[in-house]
Amino acid sequence: VTPTERATVLVEALPYLRQFRGSVIVIKYGGNALNDAEEDALAVFTTDIVLLHSVGIRPVVIHGGGPQISEFLARLGIVAEFKDGLRVTDAETLEVARMVLGGKVNKDIVASMNIHAPLAVGISGEDGAFLRAANRRPELGFVGEVEAVDTRLIEKLLAEELVPVVATIGAGDDGQSYNVNADTAAAAIAVALKAEKLIHLTNVDGIRRQADDPTTRISRLDADALESLMASGALTDGMTPKAASCLHAIRNGVHAAHILDGRVAHVLLLELLTDAGIGTMVLP
Amino acid sequence: VTPTERATVLVEALPYLRQFRGSVIVIKYGGNALNDAEEDALAVFTTDIVLLHSVGIRPVVIHGGGPQISEFLARLGIVAEFKDGLRVTDAETLEVARMVLGGKVNKDIVASMNIHAPLAVGISGEDGAFLRAANRRPELGFVGEVEAVDTRLIEKLLAEELVPVVATIGAGDDGQSYNVNADTAAAAIAVALKAEKLIHLTNVDGIRRQADDPTTRISRLDADALESLMASGALTDGMTPKAASCLHAIRNGVHAAHILDGRVAHVLLLELLTDAGIGTMVLP
Amino acid sequence: VTPTERATVLVEALPYLRQFRGSVIVIKYGGNALNDAEEDALAVFTTDIVLLHSVGIRPVVIHGGGPQISEFLARLGIVAEFKDGLRVTDAETLEVARMVLGGKVNKDIVASMNIHAPLAVGISGEDGAFLRAANRRPELGFVGEVEAVDTRLIEKLLAEELVPVVATIGAGDDGQSYNVNADTAAAAIAVALKAEKLIHLTNVDGIRRQADDPTTRISRLDADALESLMASGALTDGMTPKAASCLHAIRNGVHAAHILDGRVAHVLLLELLTDAGIGTMVLP
Amino acid sequence: VTPTERATVLVEALPYLRQFRGSVIVIKYGGNALNDAEEDALAVFTTDIVLLHSVGIRPVVIHGGGPQISEFLARLGIVAEFKDGLRVTDAETLEVARMVLGGKVNKDIVASMNIHAPLAVGISGEDGAFLRAANRRPELGFVGEVEAVDTRLIEKLLAEELVPVVATIGAGDDGQSYNVNADTAAAAIAVALKAEKLIHLTNVDGIRRQADDPTTRISRLDADALESLMASGALTDGMTPKAASCLHAIRNGVHAAHILDGRVAHVLLLELLTDAGIGTMVLP
Amino acid sequence: VTPTERATVLVEALPYLRQFRGSVIVIKYGGNALNDAEEDALAVFTTDIVLLHSVGIRPVVIHGGGPQISEFLARLGIVAEFKDGLRVTDAETLEVARMVLGGKVNKDIVASMNIHAPLAVGISGEDGAFLRAANRRPELGFVGEVEAVDTRLIEKLLAEELVPVVATIGAGDDGQSYNVNADTAAAAIAVALKAEKLIHLTNVDGIRRQADDPTTRISRLDADALESLMASGALTDGMTPKAASCLHAIRNGVHAAHILDGRVAHVLLLELLTDAGIGTMVLP
Amino acid sequence: VTPTERATVLVEALPYLRQFRGSVIVIKYGGNALNDAEEDALAVFTTDIVLLHSVGIRPVVIHGGGPQISEFLARLGIVAEFKDGLRVTDAETLEVARMVLGGKVNKDIVASMNIHAPLAVGISGEDGAFLRAANRRPELGFVGEVEAVDTRLIEKLLAEELVPVVATIGAGDDGQSYNVNADTAAAAIAVALKAEKLIHLTNVDGIRRQADDPTTRISRLDADALESLMASGALTDGMTPKAASCLHAIRNGVHAAHILDGRVAHVLLLELLTDAGIGTMVLP
Repeated sequence: VTPTERATVLVEALPYLRQFRGSVIVIKYGGNALNDAEEDALAVFTTDIVLLHSVGIRPVVIHGGGPQISEFLARLGIVAEFKDGLRVTDAETLEVARMVLGGKVNKDIVASMNIHAPLAVGISGEDGAFLRAANRRPELGFVGEVEAVDTRLIEKLLAEELVPVVATIGAGDDGQSYNVNADTAAAAIAVALKAEKLIHLTNVDGIRRQADDPTTRISRLDADALESLMASGALTDGMTPKAASCLHAIRNGVHAAHILDGRVAHVLLLELLTDAGIGTMVLP
Repeated sequence: VTPTERATVLVEALPYLRQFRGSVIVIKYGGNALNDAEEDALAVFTTDIVLLHSVGIRPVVIHGGGPQISEFLARLGIVAEFKDGLRVTDAETLEVARMVLGGKVNKDIVASMNIHAPLAVGISGEDGAFLRAANRRPELGFVGEVEAVDTRLIEKLLAEELVPVVATIGAGDDGQSYNVNADTAAAAIAVALKAEKLIHLTNVDGIRRQADDPTTRISRLDADALESLMASGALTDGMTPKAASCLHAIRNGVHAAHILDGRVAHVLLLELLTDAGIGTMVLP
Repeated sequence: VTPTERATVLVEALPYLRQFRGSVIVIKYGGNALNDAEEDALAVFTTDIVLLHSVGIRPVVIHGGGPQISEFLARLGIVAEFKDGLRVTDAETLEVARMVLGGKVNKDIVASMNIHAPLAVGISGEDGAFLRAANRRPELGFVGEVEAVDTRLIEKLLAEELVPVVATIGAGDDGQSYNVNADTAAAAIAVALKAEKLIHLTNVDGIRRQADDPTTRISRLDADALESLMASGALTDGMTPKAASCLHAIRNGVHAAHILDGRVAHVLLLELLTDAGIGTMVLP
Repeated sequence: VTPTERATVLVEALPYLRQFRGSVIVIKYGGNALNDAEEDALAVFTTDIVLLHSVGIRPVVIHGGGPQISEFLARLGIVAEFKDGLRVTDAETLEVARMVLGGKVNKDIVASMNIHAPLAVGISGEDGAFLRAANRRPELGFVGEVEAVDTRLIEKLLAEELVPVVATIGAGDDGQSYNVNADTAAAAIAVALKAEKLIHLTNVDGIRRQADDPTTRISRLDADALESLMASGALTDGMTPKAASCLHAIRNGVHAAHILDGRVAHVLLLELLTDAGIGTMVLP
Repeated sequence: VTPTERATVLVEALPYLRQFRGSVIVIKYGGNALNDAEEDALAVFTTDIVLLHSVGIRPVVIHGGGPQISEFLARLGIVAEFKDGLRVTDAETLEVARMVLGGKVNKDIVASMNIHAPLAVGISGEDGAFLRAANRRPELGFVGEVEAVDTRLIEKLLAEELVPVVATIGAGDDGQSYNVNADTAAAAIAVALKAEKLIHLTNVDGIRRQADDPTTRISRLDADALESLMASGALTDGMTPKAASCLHAIRNGVHAAHILDGRVAHVLLLELLTDAGIGTMVLP
Repeated sequence: VTPTERATVLVEALPYLRQFRGSVIVIKYGGNALNDAEEDALAVFTTDIVLLHSVGIRPVVIHGGGPQISEFLARLGIVAEFKDGLRVTDAETLEVARMVLGGKVNKDIVASMNIHAPLAVGISGEDGAFLRAANRRPELGFVGEVEAVDTRLIEKLLAEELVPVVATIGAGDDGQSYNVNADTAAAAIAVALKAEKLIHLTNVDGIRRQADDPTTRISRLDADALESLMASGALTDGMTPKAASCLHAIRNGVHAAHILDGRVAHVLLLELLTDAGIGTMVLP
């Protein structure tokens, strides 16, 4: 890279740094990404978070953990059951979900980030009862839908220049805990925090008009176009909840929502600090 | 209770309330207490914490969870192994300990407290890497001893009028996590926070001169007397780490350390707000 | 008192302490109470004020002094004259009232409180001209009615964690001072301070349906009921101004007004910190 | 006065205004001045205080009241007794002194000042127990000497831009009140407040080398010279306590002490805001 | 001047000092005044500014410099050209104007003031681009009219207790600078700062009904009367822009506008701190 | 530039941004750079300053203007005279220097920066009399050496997130102004501000062991090495004052001093935000 090229990259990046300084960016980090064979993926991801934090951006990480829960249930000889793509959650499954999400996945991310500096704090929705949830579909067991997000705890952590890492277990009014879908929770949290952006890091390169044709990736579309696309049935089962999450966020005040391929090194930096578009961006 | 008796209790209590307002009180809540048959024990304990918090005392809860870990290991068919009363912790055991402590016991306490008001926040020593630990006895596997306590995270939570609930998983310099003894951690945290008091809630009524004779309970003793007693071999195996924890705290600036019977309803209120001594108090 | 009973009293009291912390409580302390044979009455009263202050309640004491003024006038050979229960106040009487209230009664209360800690500050309505008064019934001489309460001085004292003790001499626009009825002034001050409560400490146990029958004491009534009762003529001459004071306070935003027997030891603590009702409480 | 003369006065005054802005000036206003036939004397004095306050100077007024006490004692048929120029103070005399100083003289000054704006607050040494006194000469009865000055109350009032007006009744440790000499108290308060100046307003034009010869007035002298003069016996009985007060203040950090003739209209403005010396100034 | 006369001046001045403390006073100091033969004129002017500043008034000085620019143009052999009394400003003239105003006149005033204390800071409208200007009459070249006043820079300097001294070069949107009429700019700045007063210091004694008859000076008139007078053509060419400046200020929220003879020593003090009217005052 | 290369540049730059955020960087911008044929040079320089400012670095620009002064003197027919490389400055030359530096060069830089955002404020050392100077070599006329730097004005501007642009005219105690060498002033200001770095932007690429051989550029040397080099006489006349300025800064607490070629586009960004060394860096 020549000095001139370096200067070009920097001149391009600095206005973004200024623009996003102080902004809240909610990043959904999927369980699939975590489960990747490559150990380094998590390290590169947490490095990016630390770098962004170091220049004044305020990231909030929401993580999933479906594969990890399934794996642990298997070790206990419990058969995972799904309805409409949602995990049927009996008391035993809920206990495992709380432990795997809150005691393992969450803390693995936290520990990886804290190697750089002690700034990650892992919380679940039960802490400060900040993710209020209720059961609306009894046939799914202890699966909760988001009732409200009490942003005070996260805002306090952000005010202290910490990085909240969130396991999406919800708190019911009666002290009962619920398993909450992480994509949905990420959108609700982004909206409640009035986040600048919601970013989904997953294992595809964005939304495609035809799922199996990488050349049909859509770089940028607005909320109405996304809604039409969802209605048309063109999206895969895996993409649908992410698309719905983006749509909800954009419809409720988040300025931009992104679906990015978490396997691309430093994809967060590239998306936030360069002019070039990566993945799919949804705009109002 | 007559009005005069009520007035007497209140006139006695109010000066303590004034004295302790703003004070940090570190409370070690043992895993045995949690495992109690009676469901209500946890509810009464968390009610007391909420009441104390409501009048301006700043409680920090440290919890254990040995029995719960053992139970889960059993379900996975893993045999728990102990050396000198300490759990030998291989990678698999560590993973279970992190999950049970951070994802289950911690969140159960948090959820019980948050039924009253959303003020409990569960953290582990990995969060903000606040409980720095290192391995000094390799034969025990991933068992860590406390290297340092970075009080910033807890102090920030306290400053926000939240109640930290701590699972004692420690953070190594390299991102490795460690299982840390909760009694030891409680003392280290109390010292680092310059706490007013360290209180152990356990299932005996205090230190006894003769372990099996309840009439030999010692109401109050100083650090030197406690050290002699420990050297004399009079303490039970279960009491020794609690006594050592009290001694360490008192020798390093904590004003008083207590061993109380957590089964007595509202024992925290009685100890803190009345003249009558309960359990054993260690003074400098 | 058993530990369980103690715990019961404390569990009952703590929520009140939380609720009233920071609240302004205006307490009218009658001249009769002061004149009591028992020396200790003042000491118990000021102890309660200090205790309440120590747990964050913000008391404001308004005092009377009719008997003390009469006694001093007698020593000077001046005959006290009353019209409609109000003292006819010529210049000489006014001078005596100012001296007795501001230089003796006020400072006796202040001195008694300050034995505990230097927190009482005695003021009269002339200080900071905070109690603006005007004469509306010339036939009574220098008797003033409250025109306005400038709360700044009292609020500044409260902000400094001091306890204002108020002698109810009013300030006219022209620098003329006036004798102001203490029951009326207490209500006006409570309203202006947006006080939580107005409490009259007097020498009866509350409002009775039949003045001479203690069994007819009314524990609790609302403003309308009190107004009817006053209209019915059931109240004694001594109770009428207190009832009117309560009614004015309640009708103008004070949350509760009480008439309590100041001769009951620690009656303030019992009223504020226990569930049991004492005396008469007037609610909106 | 021509424009040029006006400009001269202003150009002279403005630097003093700048210099003294924010400075604490302790002014002892003697009982004799108050008793003056001319009603206006008090009004002119309080006008000056209000003017000085309006430009940011922070006056603290200490007043005496000997003549007024004597007059009241006479009305009650009590014979005033003096030893070494100090009033022998039995319980009855003390009661009268408290009432006359705290309930009459103090409030007369306060009321006169508050005609302009509600900024004067009258306190006695019992308020906030700020003037700690003890009895060192039992033969004088309840006469106290200053033990300590707790400046917090006065400083809080000053911080609120109020003008404290002080009656010099002292508070004993046990709640007992004492009659304290106002000249002595003024010096102790000036020292404790680290005042810029202590000013005595009295009814002579300053210290004279020969008491009966007005041409021997000393404009300015230092502490040593004053001490010599006092030792020489040249001062009158009335001047001696004022000279001692000045000496104590100057020896303990007050920058200048003045003895001025309070009968000269606006003498405070002339002293503080013009180059011309008036009365006697004592310097370190 | 006798003590009584001094006291009179002071008693008169102090309320003005109180009234104007913290007020922003915009003072236009004309180039003619600067060019005066008497060296001292500038020194007396800056002394007054320093005195006013020392007592808490917040002066903002706007200066002209027409004669000085003309003189420098002459040295460079450039012929000054005027249209309708406004200087035709080509690029070369603009360069000279910027240098003379910003590098010489401005800094001469600053240096004179800073002999007293380092409190003057010279700025031009290009600094912080605070005086936004645009060209509306191309035939005049780089002459700008005020588009907007961004008060932040001046307010920051005032907040730091500094005295802004302003050269009226304006900043265009494109970085082009413009010559802006100082009388117009002074009014715009006074309005934008919500100034208490706008004062023009010039070399006549005020507005006259007949320009050549000093006895026809108008002491005080309101905005409507001034507008009529301007319409009547009674004003001189030199007075017209000052009158227009006053009218604009008064019509837009400034409380009073003055035209004073800057040659009268301490005319600022006399106008601000005495009852006597000097020059011409325009009121709403 | 590929995404990977971009990511590399960003990962390299972000830690520098974090490190320098809030740091004061003093940049000396030479008159030669300004006089460059290419119009764009100034625009690129001010763009860099604005970019650095936008990410929280606090630049302070010190500028020269020798060529511009000489040019103007020539237009006025004044012959510039030099002694030991320093301009002999008579009154007329000083007047021109003040005007050219303060009214032209300074404002040209300010205007160029303010096209982006209104954040540059041009000051000279006479403003707030912040650059105190005295004459030590009378034969040079009004040439001043730095006596002291009063950092308050610059710090206040920095606190308001403004960019100070400084013309190095010094203020004498008596109000006399002096021409001060800009290289010397830059070092003194950097030291007084406890700046992180002092950067000289000039028209050579750094210090060379042999002035005419670009391959002998020294990338990095410490203070002792620089001192030796200066003593050896290897430096050119033009480089000597810059080297002396760097040495003074480094010897007095500035962390690093740089000599960079201002003609390289974005040389400031490259130096501050990349690992690659440019020009010459002097370290303690």
